[in-house]
Amino acid sequence: MTEISTAQLKEPVITLSAGPVTCYPRVLQGMSRTVHYDYDPYFQEAYEQIAKRCAEALRIAEPALILQCEPAPAIEAAAASLIGNEDLVLNLASGVYGKGFGYWAARTARRVEEIEVPFNEAIDPAAVEAAFKAHPEIRVVSVVHHDTPSGTLNPVAEIGRIVHDRGALLIVDAVSSFAGMPIHPKDCLADVFITGPGKCLGGPPSLSVLAVSEPAWAHMEANPTAPRASILSLLDWKEAWRSGKDFPFTPSVAAINGLEAAISGYLEEGPEAVWARHALTGRACRAGIKAMGLELWAAQEEIAAPTCTAVTLPEEIESAQLLAAARRLFGVVFSSGVANTEGKLFRIGHMGPVAEPIYAAVAIAALGGAFATLGKPLDVAAGQAAVLAEIVAGEV
Amino acid sequence: MTEISTAQLKEPVITLSAGPVTCYPRVLQGMSRTVHYDYDPYFQEAYEQIAKRCAEALRIAEPALILQCEPAPAIEAAAASLIGNEDLVLNLASGVYGKGFGYWAARTARRVEEIEVPFNEAIDPAAVEAAFKAHPEIRVVSVVHHDTPSGTLNPVAEIGRIVHDRGALLIVDAVSSFAGMPIHPKDCLADVFITGPGKCLGGPPSLSVLAVSEPAWAHMEANPTAPRASILSLLDWKEAWRSGKDFPFTPSVAAINGLEAAISGYLEEGPEAVWARHALTGRACRAGIKAMGLELWAAQEEIAAPTCTAVTLPEEIESAQLLAAARRLFGVVFSSGVANTEGKLFRIGHMGPVAEPIYAAVAIAALGGAFATLGKPLDVAAGQAAVLAEIVAGEV
Amino acid sequence: MTEISTAQLKEPVITLSAGPVTCYPRVLQGMSRTVHYDYDPYFQEAYEQIAKRCAEALRIAEPALILQCEPAPAIEAAAASLIGNEDLVLNLASGVYGKGFGYWAARTARRVEEIEVPFNEAIDPAAVEAAFKAHPEIRVVSVVHHDTPSGTLNPVAEIGRIVHDRGALLIVDAVSSFAGMPIHPKDCLADVFITGPGKCLGGPPSLSVLAVSEPAWAHMEANPTAPRASILSLLDWKEAWRSGKDFPFTPSVAAINGLEAAISGYLEEGPEAVWARHALTGRACRAGIKAMGLELWAAQEEIAAPTCTAVTLPEEIESAQLLAAARRLFGVVFSSGVANTEGKLFRIGHMGPVAEPIYAAVAIAALGGAFATLGKPLDVAAGQAAVLAEIVAGEV
Amino acid sequence: MTEISTAQLKEPVITLSAGPVTCYPRVLQGMSRTVHYDYDPYFQEAYEQIAKRCAEALRIAEPALILQCEPAPAIEAAAASLIGNEDLVLNLASGVYGKGFGYWAARTARRVEEIEVPFNEAIDPAAVEAAFKAHPEIRVVSVVHHDTPSGTLNPVAEIGRIVHDRGALLIVDAVSSFAGMPIHPKDCLADVFITGPGKCLGGPPSLSVLAVSEPAWAHMEANPTAPRASILSLLDWKEAWRSGKDFPFTPSVAAINGLEAAISGYLEEGPEAVWARHALTGRACRAGIKAMGLELWAAQEEIAAPTCTAVTLPEEIESAQLLAAARRLFGVVFSSGVANTEGKLFRIGHMGPVAEPIYAAVAIAALGGAFATLGKPLDVAAGQAAVLAEIVAGEV
Repeated sequence: MTEISTAQLKEPVITLSAGPVTCYPRVLQGMSRTVHYDYDPYFQEAYEQIAKRCAEALRIAEPALILQCEPAPAIEAAAASLIGNEDLVLNLASGVYGKGFGYWAARTARRVEEIEVPFNEAIDPAAVEAAFKAHPEIRVVSVVHHDTPSGTLNPVAEIGRIVHDRGALLIVDAVSSFAGMPIHPKDCLADVFITGPGKCLGGPPSLSVLAVSEPAWAHMEANPTAPRASILSLLDWKEAWRSGKDFPFTPSVAAINGLEAAISGYLEEGPEAVWARHALTGRACRAGIKAMGLELWAAQEEIAAPTCTAVTLPEEIESAQLLAAARRLFGVVFSSGVANTEGKLFRIGHMGPVAEPIYAAVAIAALGGAFATLGKPLDVAAGQAAVLAEIVAGEV
Repeated sequence: MTEISTAQLKEPVITLSAGPVTCYPRVLQGMSRTVHYDYDPYFQEAYEQIAKRCAEALRIAEPALILQCEPAPAIEAAAASLIGNEDLVLNLASGVYGKGFGYWAARTARRVEEIEVPFNEAIDPAAVEAAFKAHPEIRVVSVVHHDTPSGTLNPVAEIGRIVHDRGALLIVDAVSSFAGMPIHPKDCLADVFITGPGKCLGGPPSLSVLAVSEPAWAHMEANPTAPRASILSLLDWKEAWRSGKDFPFTPSVAAINGLEAAISGYLEEGPEAVWARHALTGRACRAGIKAMGLELWAAQEEIAAPTCTAVTLPEEIESAQLLAAARRLFGVVFSSGVANTEGKLFRIGHMGPVAEPIYAAVAIAALGGAFATLGKPLDVAAGQAAVLAEIVAGEV
Repeated sequence: MTEISTAQLKEPVITLSAGPVTCYPRVLQGMSRTVHYDYDPYFQEAYEQIAKRCAEALRIAEPALILQCEPAPAIEAAAASLIGNEDLVLNLASGVYGKGFGYWAARTARRVEEIEVPFNEAIDPAAVEAAFKAHPEIRVVSVVHHDTPSGTLNPVAEIGRIVHDRGALLIVDAVSSFAGMPIHPKDCLADVFITGPGKCLGGPPSLSVLAVSEPAWAHMEANPTAPRASILSLLDWKEAWRSGKDFPFTPSVAAINGLEAAISGYLEEGPEAVWARHALTGRACRAGIKAMGLELWAAQEEIAAPTCTAVTLPEEIESAQLLAAARRLFGVVFSSGVANTEGKLFRIGHMGPVAEPIYAAVAIAALGGAFATLGKPLDVAAGQAAVLAEIVAGEV
Repeated sequence: MTEISTAQLKEPVITLSAGPVTCYPRVLQGMSRTVHYDYDPYFQEAYEQIAKRCAEALRIAEPALILQCEPAPAIEAAAASLIGNEDLVLNLASGVYGKGFGYWAARTARRVEEIEVPFNEAIDPAAVEAAFKAHPEIRVVSVVHHDTPSGTLNPVAEIGRIVHDRGALLIVDAVSSFAGMPIHPKDCLADVFITGPGKCLGGPPSLSVLAVSEPAWAHMEANPTAPRASILSLLDWKEAWRSGKDFPFTPSVAAINGLEAAISGYLEEGPEAVWARHALTGRACRAGIKAMGLELWAAQEEIAAPTCTAVTLPEEIESAQLLAAARRLFGVVFSSGVANTEGKLFRIGHMGPVAEPIYAAVAIAALGGAFATLGKPLDVAAGQAAVLAEIVAGEV
């Protein structure tokens, strides 16, 4: 982003990022609520209610585990808490985040096996099956549902079934899919299911919300290397939702207020309605992208996430220049690739408040203009027509 | 707090806690600002500016280090990052937090020496001098400026001078003193100076603000056990303030907006003016407490913090009942003791928005009523008279 | 207020004014909601719901009439709309606002009869009875329930019964009593009942909420001088609450959002609970005022409003100096008298968020300090003791 | 709007109305500021500063006159205050609001002369010149700069010069043009210049901001029918901006806070920059509208306002159905015509936060989809291409 002189930059007009997203208005209002003392019973009662409302959204029985950090360190904490020196870990890597988990797993694991596929493809459940055959002692499997830097989905339901049948524990990173499509711990039989408010929930990006199964808690409690008295400890926070129980350290009160607003909004609108507008926006966007002459990054459209459309960057276009042009001309923010996908793709987020079909049209317009100024005019007309056709067709 | 039925509890009316504090109104408004994408140059520029404004408040030259967690885990991270297997650590324990640091230090230190004093007293600089004589190889010293669970101050300026002269590194926890009284890294020659927005700055309790000296950075960089790719890593965030540089993980955008408001408010009001109202409120409160027949917890009033008044709990009174009575009758929230100080004292916070003299009168009134209902009437009249006398005398 | 140099003034710390009051936090959050287009059905539906919720609070059957101005001009509009050239008006004046209504009434009335009592007393229903005997053709009677500049109440229930029996129409100004004590249109048989969100509801001070009876609407419709196409017209807004109907002019969308929050808060907390804390705060404050050696302005304590305590100004004290001292020393804001009561009394508001007993103690403390600096020390000790005794006794 | 079932309606996604507009985020935050007591010097000082900042934006010397109601009643008040029984008024009517002013003027004027042109055309200055020749005693002239229901501009600079040369007084309604294009009192030599925060300033719609010339004040003061002690009185508020002076009635404190934010945002961004994005958005939108096969309402494009694009409704399309389709499919809100223009045109607002070029693309996309579902497909491709071409060309 070196060519942008930030000093003169205006605030973005419309952010279509892969997250954090501009929050819903009710979330912003929620974060302006009075910050209460964490020992006061009023806040403690509120915290318990929020943990239960998160559980309702996650469709689990026990109050959710809320960690006071965003999902990346929460995943680090989950790895540190769950994986002991005796554990053989199978890491499934179909993208940057999946690959990255392997490093955290390796810190404490006995050994990490890895299945890696190109970052525009998905993990084949058959390969997981084969790995278990080769290494029946696999104790923990980890997978990313939506690997955001690639905008691709993994078949976590099938993978979860295999892992569960083998008696292993499954960690699922559903950070940028939960609340944007139908995915819950029970859908993929996850033992540690990790998400956060900063993506499809349209909340602030500084908390994590986890569902942890009883076997996973038991495994942590038996794990001698599981951190305690540490921000890396899940166990410290296990019962922290109980009103009357002290928090291990001061919770992020303002963000908790924002989480409350985000979760309540999600439940009140109705999860099915929320997923539907994410799906329609994604579908309209992909239709427009293809029609205007660009290519989806995902090897097959079926694995393209409804919450984030990754688009292959044409060879002659530089990512930073493209994004800077959209930003400068229209005030529209897109996401570049990350790490291994940087320079190979760019991304259009459809999460939370911008998971609305009109933003597919916004994306096509802004991209059309940006490509044109970079000397590569696209068929914007066809793109917009395809967007509109999907939206009209998508109306119930 | 088991005797309080939370279901019927109203929101507090006035919170005089030891933190987190109800934020300043401008902070609450700040947290309702649009959450921007952390890769967008607008946010990156804002983050850089905020790091610089924090530095201005800290009176340091380099942009401050902002960590995306509240101070307790930030101190854990500082210990993990700074203290290596070769390091002899001298831990100074005059309270719960000082004592607690020893456990974190012990994780990676070669050995931890400790000077411990009763939790209503302060560390004697002469003892530090003596420790260096006995163990000249001490490499890291840690001290809490204001040990909040005791409401007592340590003479960090003198201690800092000794540590500096010996060429060791000093970690200072100034979480609940910075911005409530004149204390800065240079005042105590701190190498790692840790504070946060949730106490005297009247901001949200989910970030930490650190000043790290060049020798401390160098020591971390040479430390083979210093965490990387971890929420416990200070090094990961060293240059994160630079606009154009990616963040190690997603920063807490909404809280950063709140921090911006808190720091700007502090600088605009003027640090000296802010300290003066903290000091006057503390002084008036202590005068009232003594006049009404209670005893300060601090062995000498000179070490009583201006930001938090700890009061010895009379023998026949239970802390939980006292606080519950004040809460029920008046909606006023106080803090109990913590860990070792629990059941021995209670605390009246004077931090941020409630560091205003009128709240000393509020404290005396609410305590008077609460003690009375518990069958121990105090001399509220004398208490209020003493409060008023201090306030009137304190007017410039 | 000439002796205050505003340039150096800080924001108030605690406002105990006779209104506008600092709003409830949820009201402030409500006013930060997106401002929607008034023709959009979403806003129109919301407006209808709010008019209905106001009716629920007013305990009337039809949706309330909301006017887009604060109550003073709303009362002007009510006078202009209701009172025609044929109408003999009986104006009841026990304070500044009651007296003032006479001027508005006189603009269009055939004639205005007036019963005036000293501004520290209340209207005697027998005098109203007598006026009707003397002038049986009285068509409209107007009375202020709580005349805020005096802090005194009129017996509107009895007056309403008399007016109703005589077949006349009754205008009741309940601006600063509604929602702070049990008073509704049906309690006083009001034909035009006027209140607003800026006092005991703890909302923004720029709207009015009215209940208008069918006979009153009929009288307005028959009134040839009733304004139309005017901000003084009540008739223009009669059906404006209906979703799908255009507004006569643009409604105050942001304030409407604030009103929604204020009314919802009132209904959720429970009117009885809200009145109880207003009553207890007022009772405790009056007890403290008397015990510290000051005199209530009201000739009999029974007519002292629970929502505002008016205190006789001792002869040797100047109102502006007293209020300035409380403001400067403590950041506490009180109200002076207004017009005829200026220089004779000062007032302590107990409305909305500060209708909490602890603020009675705040008032006594701040007044004690202020009087002391003006050379007139009061018995603050006795005042605080009396406050506490009332609060403790008031606990259920 | 009868065909829309509001019960199921979602909040709008993007509002491109002719105002009120969704406010700027900083305005929403501003309205969540503490509501201060209007007699407190802190608020009085703030009010004075805001009146001065409004003057800076209006480019006038004296603090602006702020009225506590939205512009329609403010114009009613201006007419009532300025126009006396001796005054011959020339009313210039090129649209619904211009026409409407005649009714208010007629209430108190000796007589009202009117020049009326079709509502898609502008007043010809030569006709004003001719009117003065025919009626040299014309004392007051009134004109609407941007008659929002038509989206058309009048040549107020030329008209103002004529009126001024004749020694008459000019009332200019600049409600929906000020702050969206270069127009100030001095540009049109206005004696009463009326605007408000709810349009191009992106503020709340419940205040009015006026500039009143000395001759206009003098005329009002000499006008025996000028209202006093009334919401229709401008004179009551003449000096109300002075700190220390009481307000005639309680000002709309929360909205004043919003106005402060709106004006400050306008001045900080820079008026020229604000006008430029309004102009570019309007230009891009008009280009798109024409290219997609629709017709501008304005008889000549030169009189089409940059702040609102009025589009002729094709004969076979019903306004309500069109707007409902855009609302339902895309969540995009447009404005219909009003009164005489209802059913003849629809309008796309470019005011305040949506005066950003990307929203021209949004408008074309949403209209394209809406027309298509109503059986009238337009050339959206050409429309979008034209929009993009204007935006790219408009980049500096």
